[in-house]
Amino acid sequence: MNNILESHLNLIEKSIMTFVPSVEKSYSVIEDAMKYSLETGGKRVRPMLVLEFCRICGGDVEKALPFAAAVEFIHTYSLIHDDLPCMDNDDMRRGKPSSHIKFGEADALLAGDALLTHAFTALASAELSSKQIVDAVKILSDYAGANGMIGGQIIDLEGENKNLSLEELFLMDKLKTAALITAACVLGCIAADNYNNIPSAIKFAENLGIAFQIIDDVLDFLEGEDNSDIISGKSTYVSLLGLENARVEAAKYTDTALEALNLVSGNTEVLVDFSMKLLKRNV
Amino acid sequence: MNNILESHLNLIEKSIMTFVPSVEKSYSVIEDAMKYSLETGGKRVRPMLVLEFCRICGGDVEKALPFAAAVEFIHTYSLIHDDLPCMDNDDMRRGKPSSHIKFGEADALLAGDALLTHAFTALASAELSSKQIVDAVKILSDYAGANGMIGGQIIDLEGENKNLSLEELFLMDKLKTAALITAACVLGCIAADNYNNIPSAIKFAENLGIAFQIIDDVLDFLEGEDNSDIISGKSTYVSLLGLENARVEAAKYTDTALEALNLVSGNTEVLVDFSMKLLKRNV
Repeated sequence: MNNILESHLNLIEKSIMTFVPSVEKSYSVIEDAMKYSLETGGKRVRPMLVLEFCRICGGDVEKALPFAAAVEFIHTYSLIHDDLPCMDNDDMRRGKPSSHIKFGEADALLAGDALLTHAFTALASAELSSKQIVDAVKILSDYAGANGMIGGQIIDLEGENKNLSLEELFLMDKLKTAALITAACVLGCIAADNYNNIPSAIKFAENLGIAFQIIDDVLDFLEGEDNSDIISGKSTYVSLLGLENARVEAAKYTDTALEALNLVSGNTEVLVDFSMKLLKRNV
Repeated sequence: MNNILESHLNLIEKSIMTFVPSVEKSYSVIEDAMKYSLETGGKRVRPMLVLEFCRICGGDVEKALPFAAAVEFIHTYSLIHDDLPCMDNDDMRRGKPSSHIKFGEADALLAGDALLTHAFTALASAELSSKQIVDAVKILSDYAGANGMIGGQIIDLEGENKNLSLEELFLMDKLKTAALITAACVLGCIAADNYNNIPSAIKFAENLGIAFQIIDDVLDFLEGEDNSDIISGKSTYVSLLGLENARVEAAKYTDTALEALNLVSGNTEVLVDFSMKLLKRNV
């Protein structure tokens, strides 16, 4: 991996647990459950985007770490709640038992709530100006909220009972997947106090997010494994357009994302590499 | 009701729904579900405390409305999640079907998540200095988080499987009930930019919160109604100390709360009245 990306990832892994509050022994299961789901790794795509946008924009990436943690906390809470029996009812997450299998449903629910809550504690702890932090709170709560990630989850749930149109699927992916990716890129600009790059960052991220989701759908289809989305017959780009056209769509959104990067002031070479690796991944 | 309190309540009722984001028709159930639970009224104790502390501290109560809404959003999300089958499994809330009975478990879960998320959107929308808003984000996320309300819920869950000691019960009530009441009082001080009053506000609120919870326990016991806490045999001040001693404890915490108010600079007469009505209530 590129040195810059490796350095980002090291910073993220070294710092992320420090944003989980230490609690008294009598209710320490909440701390354990928060850490359990944060540990289940993944690619840290969103915090990496925070740091890389901060770097491109000329900011100090260490100061962006609280913003990076906040976005990962939101992503992680959404996975915990998504896995609950009343949602996708997934027993496994990244090869480990889901939070509710490990800790029980009630504690998993509360661990998700705590990660969501402490995403904002993390934002507020940043050593940046109060104005930057308030802007970050607005961005993160908007993109994670009813007109962002949560709205996308609602459409996803409704899609279990009916076939989605391509427009509905696009809106779902834009909200459910692209919104938090967009928040990550914008938070990186804010951390660097570079507001000029925000419009291009948004265009990049929205298109990257859709491409990312289509490729997820393609991989899920190809694996044809024990996949709850396929079993439940949810609409995806593959089910609506077929495999080849889904790949064409992914390439189209990728091109638009990369074009948007041309308008970002700063050296975006590393980000282009990172994006291409994400979109050419096999898992 | 006192004119000042009536005016606060009118302001709260007139403004609270404006902090719920408007969303597109295809996922409007999230907006409906957020509003449904916010409408189920209650006494608005926490937002009233925000506004009254702001007024006592010499602030403009209208500017404190976003903070008041934020605290009520947190309280409301906690009730929705608390009522879920994996938690208290309560079908009714304030005489109406619980959110998950009305909207289904998945949408209720997401409505709670959205209220929690948009509590922070509300804070960030206040027309106050960025420093005041960042302080509010810190306070609300701390008191609502793992070392606040959520920690209290964890102890509450553990109390279903064992008898709590008086110390454990105190810690549970301090976190589960008093923490958000404390956040409300502190947010009122912050909205008025009066940081000197915060230590006394905290002492008042922590004691008021415990007294409030003990009286809840007393009323639940006296009603002996279809009460899930009694049915599940949870530890309360009444089960541990008996009815009369529980009342003595409530009076003790009330006295300590009112003493703390003597140290608050500003006219606290209305707040004393409000507190006494809360603690002498029959429902």
